[in-house]
Amino acid sequence: MSTPLCIFDTTLRDGTQGEGISLTAEDKVKIALKLDALGVHYIEGGNPGSNNKDIEFFRRVREMKLQAKLTAFGSTRRKNSSCEQDINLKHLTESGAQAATLVGKTWDFHVHTALQTTLEENLAMIYESLAFVKNSGMEALFDAEHFFDGYKANPEYALAALAKAKEAGAAWIVLCDTNGGTLPSEINEIVSRVVSEIDAPIGIHTHNDCELAVANTLAAITAGARQIQGTINGYGERCGNANLCSIIPTLQLKMGYNCVSDEQLRNLTGVARYVSEIANVNMPVNQPYVGNAAFAHKGGIHVSAIMKDSKTYEHIEPHLVGNKQRVLVSELAGQSNILSKAQEMGLEVNPEGMKSREVIDRIKDLEHQGYQFEGADASLELILRDAYGDSVEIFSVESFKIMVEKNAGQMVTEAIVKINVAGEQVYTVAEGNGPVNALDNALRKALVQFYPGIRDVHLSDYKVRVLDEKDTTAAKVRVLIESTNFKDTWSTVGVSSNVIEASWEALVDSIRYALIGMAKDEFAPELIQTNGLMNH
Amino acid sequence: MSTPLCIFDTTLRDGTQGEGISLTAEDKVKIALKLDALGVHYIEGGNPGSNNKDIEFFRRVREMKLQAKLTAFGSTRRKNSSCEQDINLKHLTESGAQAATLVGKTWDFHVHTALQTTLEENLAMIYESLAFVKNSGMEALFDAEHFFDGYKANPEYALAALAKAKEAGAAWIVLCDTNGGTLPSEINEIVSRVVSEIDAPIGIHTHNDCELAVANTLAAITAGARQIQGTINGYGERCGNANLCSIIPTLQLKMGYNCVSDEQLRNLTGVARYVSEIANVNMPVNQPYVGNAAFAHKGGIHVSAIMKDSKTYEHIEPHLVGNKQRVLVSELAGQSNILSKAQEMGLEVNPEGMKSREVIDRIKDLEHQGYQFEGADASLELILRDAYGDSVEIFSVESFKIMVEKNAGQMVTEAIVKINVAGEQVYTVAEGNGPVNALDNALRKALVQFYPGIRDVHLSDYKVRVLDEKDTTAAKVRVLIESTNFKDTWSTVGVSSNVIEASWEALVDSIRYALIGMAKDEFAPELIQTNGLMNH
Repeated sequence: MSTPLCIFDTTLRDGTQGEGISLTAEDKVKIALKLDALGVHYIEGGNPGSNNKDIEFFRRVREMKLQAKLTAFGSTRRKNSSCEQDINLKHLTESGAQAATLVGKTWDFHVHTALQTTLEENLAMIYESLAFVKNSGMEALFDAEHFFDGYKANPEYALAALAKAKEAGAAWIVLCDTNGGTLPSEINEIVSRVVSEIDAPIGIHTHNDCELAVANTLAAITAGARQIQGTINGYGERCGNANLCSIIPTLQLKMGYNCVSDEQLRNLTGVARYVSEIANVNMPVNQPYVGNAAFAHKGGIHVSAIMKDSKTYEHIEPHLVGNKQRVLVSELAGQSNILSKAQEMGLEVNPEGMKSREVIDRIKDLEHQGYQFEGADASLELILRDAYGDSVEIFSVESFKIMVEKNAGQMVTEAIVKINVAGEQVYTVAEGNGPVNALDNALRKALVQFYPGIRDVHLSDYKVRVLDEKDTTAAKVRVLIESTNFKDTWSTVGVSSNVIEASWEALVDSIRYALIGMAKDEFAPELIQTNGLMNH
Repeated sequence: MSTPLCIFDTTLRDGTQGEGISLTAEDKVKIALKLDALGVHYIEGGNPGSNNKDIEFFRRVREMKLQAKLTAFGSTRRKNSSCEQDINLKHLTESGAQAATLVGKTWDFHVHTALQTTLEENLAMIYESLAFVKNSGMEALFDAEHFFDGYKANPEYALAALAKAKEAGAAWIVLCDTNGGTLPSEINEIVSRVVSEIDAPIGIHTHNDCELAVANTLAAITAGARQIQGTINGYGERCGNANLCSIIPTLQLKMGYNCVSDEQLRNLTGVARYVSEIANVNMPVNQPYVGNAAFAHKGGIHVSAIMKDSKTYEHIEPHLVGNKQRVLVSELAGQSNILSKAQEMGLEVNPEGMKSREVIDRIKDLEHQGYQFEGADASLELILRDAYGDSVEIFSVESFKIMVEKNAGQMVTEAIVKINVAGEQVYTVAEGNGPVNALDNALRKALVQFYPGIRDVHLSDYKVRVLDEKDTTAAKVRVLIESTNFKDTWSTVGVSSNVIEASWEALVDSIRYALIGMAKDEFAPELIQTNGLMNH
C-alpha cells in the first residue's frame, strides 16, 4: 500500500485566515523555503487578486525554482461577466505561479444566497474560469467550496458542478468541507460516491470546527482521495484547517503511505516550530507529534515504565518526526544535562563537587526568575565558564544610559555606554532607531578599536516575551538575542522588569561570547586570563 | 436515535497530568461544581491513594450532594499481594466516592515489561481488586489500560482481561487508547468485536497523540460503546485526552444523542473558559465550538455572505453552545468588514462615499505598515470615529521623553510627558519599573486631576512582537495593549521601529478610548466636542 499521495500546503493562503496570523511577504518567502524542504508538492502562496503583498510574494518566489508547484488562489469569475474582464483572474494568470486554485460554488443554497445568481450561471462561471486559467498555460485546480453541505442538500447539483470542472480540464477536483461541520462517516460515504462517478483526481480540504479535520482527511483518503490540502500547525479560519503536522506522520508511520522522505519527516518538528515562530503564535505544548509535550512524561508510573521501554507510553519513536522524549519535574535529568553540557565544553567537572552543586543551584534560581537556557546556549556557556573558573573578562560595564524623546513629531534615541577594556575606560555615545539599537551601536563603537572583528558579528534575531501578563507594563520580560558571524550562530538571554535592562544583558552576553571566540581564534591573546579556554 | 450516553469527566484526574496543569483542592471543588451543572454523569476527582490533596477534595465534595457520581481513581492491587494489604485500595474505599475506577493491564507486553509479572497473576489482580471495591459498596469501573495496543498484540489475552473484570462485577468496562496511537477504523473494528463478545456496558477513553481523540471516541460510540471518558478542553498527559467540549455538541447537535439538556449545552463555552481560567492555561482562540475564534470571520467574501445568512459559513448556530459570532477586521477582509463594524458603532456610513473609501485605504495602509486591528478593536474604533467625524479630543500630546540609566548596579527609569487637556498644558514626570511603566505612570498623573475615573483603568496585558526579525534591533515592533475597567476590556495597537514609540501609541489609544467611554457615561461632558458620539 504505497500509493503516492499529493500534499498541498495552504499555510500561506488559508492559514493566514486564522485569527492572529499575519505574515509579511518576507515571512511568506521564508516559510515557502521551509515547506519546499519539507517536501510538500504544492505551495499555495496567496491571492494575487486581493492584495499587493501576495503579488510581491509571487514575484520573489517564482525566481527561486522550488521543487513544489507554486500555486495562486482565486475565485471563479464574477456573475454575468467574462473572464477577460475579470481583474482577479488577470492578476492570477499574471502571478507567475505554475498552478491556480479556483474556488467555486457547489451548494445550491450558496448560489442563491451568497452569489445571488442562477444555478446555470454558476456552472458557466466554473467552466469558463477553469478553462480560462488552463488556456493561460497554468495547471487548474477546482476548489469545490461547501461540497459536502452542497451534496447533502442537492447531490445532483453538487456533482454537476464537479462534472463541469472536469469538463473544463481541471487537473484536480478538491472537495472542501468549508464550514467544518461534516462527520468522518459522511466524508467516507460522499467521497466514495464522487470517486466512483467523477473520473478525475480528487482532493480533500477540511476544517476543524468539530475537531475532526484530521480524521475527515484520513476518511477521504481511505475512500480514494489523493490530494490533501492542509496547513502547518492547522492554522486557518475559525478553528483552523486540517493540520499537516498530524496528517503526514500518521499517513506515513501508521498507514503505509509515502508522502515525504524519512529524512524530510524528521524535519517536521523543526518546520512546525519555525512556522510558529515566524507567525509569532505560541505553539500549544500539547500539539500532537511536534509539540514540546507530545512525548513528555509527568513522573510516577509512566516515567518508570518508559525507563524500561519507551514503547510502554509512546505511540511512535519521537525522533522519527524530529521531536524528543522529555521527563518533566525530574531534577536528576536537569542536573545531568547541565553537567554533560559542561563536560562537552571541555571543563573539568566533578559532578559531586561543591562547584557543581553551586552552578546547578544558580541555574535553577535563574530559571525560577524567568531565564530560559534551552534557547540561549551561549548565555549558559558563559555561566558554566564563570563557575568552573574558565572565564575571560573581555570588558566590564561601568554604566549605560538611554534617552528617547519625541518632540514636534521628531523621535531622537541616544545611548551612552561607559565600559573598561584592557584597563582603559571607553565612553561612547550613539544614536539608533530605538533604544536597543542605540545601545548596540554604542557598545560596538566602544569595542571596535580593540576588536575590529566585531564588525562581522550581527544580531540575527531579537525576541521579547512578557513573562507574567497580569502585571502588564510592570511585568518581567525575557529578551532572546540570536547573533551570527556568518559561520556560527549563538543565542543569549536577559530577564528584567525593564525591557532595556533585559535587552542590554542579552546584548552584552552576545558580544562577550563572540569576543571570547575571537580571542581564542585570532585576537590579542595577551588580554586573556584563562586557565583552560585555550586548550580546546 | 436517542440512546442516552453516559459522560464521564476526568478533567480533575487525567486532565491534571497535562503539562502546566496544576490544581489545588479548592480549584478542584470549584470545577466539580461547574461540571455538575454542565450535566456530566461521572466526575473523577483524583487518586486518593497518591496524595493528600485528592483526599481533601473527596472529603469536601462528598458533602455537596452532586448530581454526578463522584468517582475515585486507583490501580489494581500490587502483584503477589492481597487487596486487604493494599494501602492505595484502602484510601480508595475510604474516600467517600460513590464509584471507583481501577486501571489494570490488558497488554501482555506491559504485564511482562512494566509490571514484570505473569499473565495469570495480572488476571487475578484485576478480578480481586474489582471484587474488593465492589464489596466495599462502591460501583466499580474497569479502565482497560492500553486495550487497543493489547488487542492488536494478543487479542485473546486482552479479551480475557475484560472477561475477568466482567466476572468480578464491573459496572463498566472502559477501553483505553492510552498511548493515543490508534486509528478510527481500528477503534471501530475492535470495539465492535468487544461489544459482541463481552456482555457488559462498554466505555471509551482516548488520547490525542494523533489528533484523533474526538474521532476515535465517535467511532467507538458508533460501534456500540456507551460511556465517554474525556476532559474539558482536552487537558491531559502529552497531547491530552478526548475533548468533551467538542464531543458533547457533536453528539448532541449532529448525531441525535442526548447527553445533557439544551440549557446545559448553552453553558458549554462558559464552563470551558472557566476551567481554563482556573487552570491558568490560555485557551487556544481556535478551539472548536468554544474558542473565541470558533465563529470569527476574517475573509471578505465570508463576511459579506454571513451578513446575508450565517449558515453560509457556520456549521451550527453559535448560541447553541453559548458562543457568539465575531467579525474580524484585517487586510484580507474586504470593506464589508470595516463598514459593518462602523455601522455596529452607530456611525452614519455611506458604503459608496468618498469617506468610506478613504478610511478603507487608510486601514489597509496601516496594516501594510504592520498594524493589526483584529486584536485591537479599540484602536480601530478610534480611527473610524475620526474618519466619520465622530471623534473627541480628550487630550493632545506635545512631547514625551524617557531616560533609563544603569550606574553602579542601580537602574533608574524616568518619563516626562507634556500634554494639553481642556486647553491647559500639563507637564509631569514619573518613575517606573521600565520605560513603558514610567510613561504609563506619567500619563495617568497628568490626567487624573481631570478624569479621576482613570484610576479604575488598568492595563491587563502587554505584548511585543518583532515584525521583521531579520532587521533585529532596528526592526519594527508591534505592541498590543489590553486594558480593563473591570466591566469592559479593550485592546489597542502601536507600531514603530522604536519599542518606546510603539508602546506610547498603544498606551495613548487605550487611555483615549477609556476616557471617551467615561466622557459618555459620567464625566465632564463640557470637554467633549462631538457631532455624534453622544447619540449612542
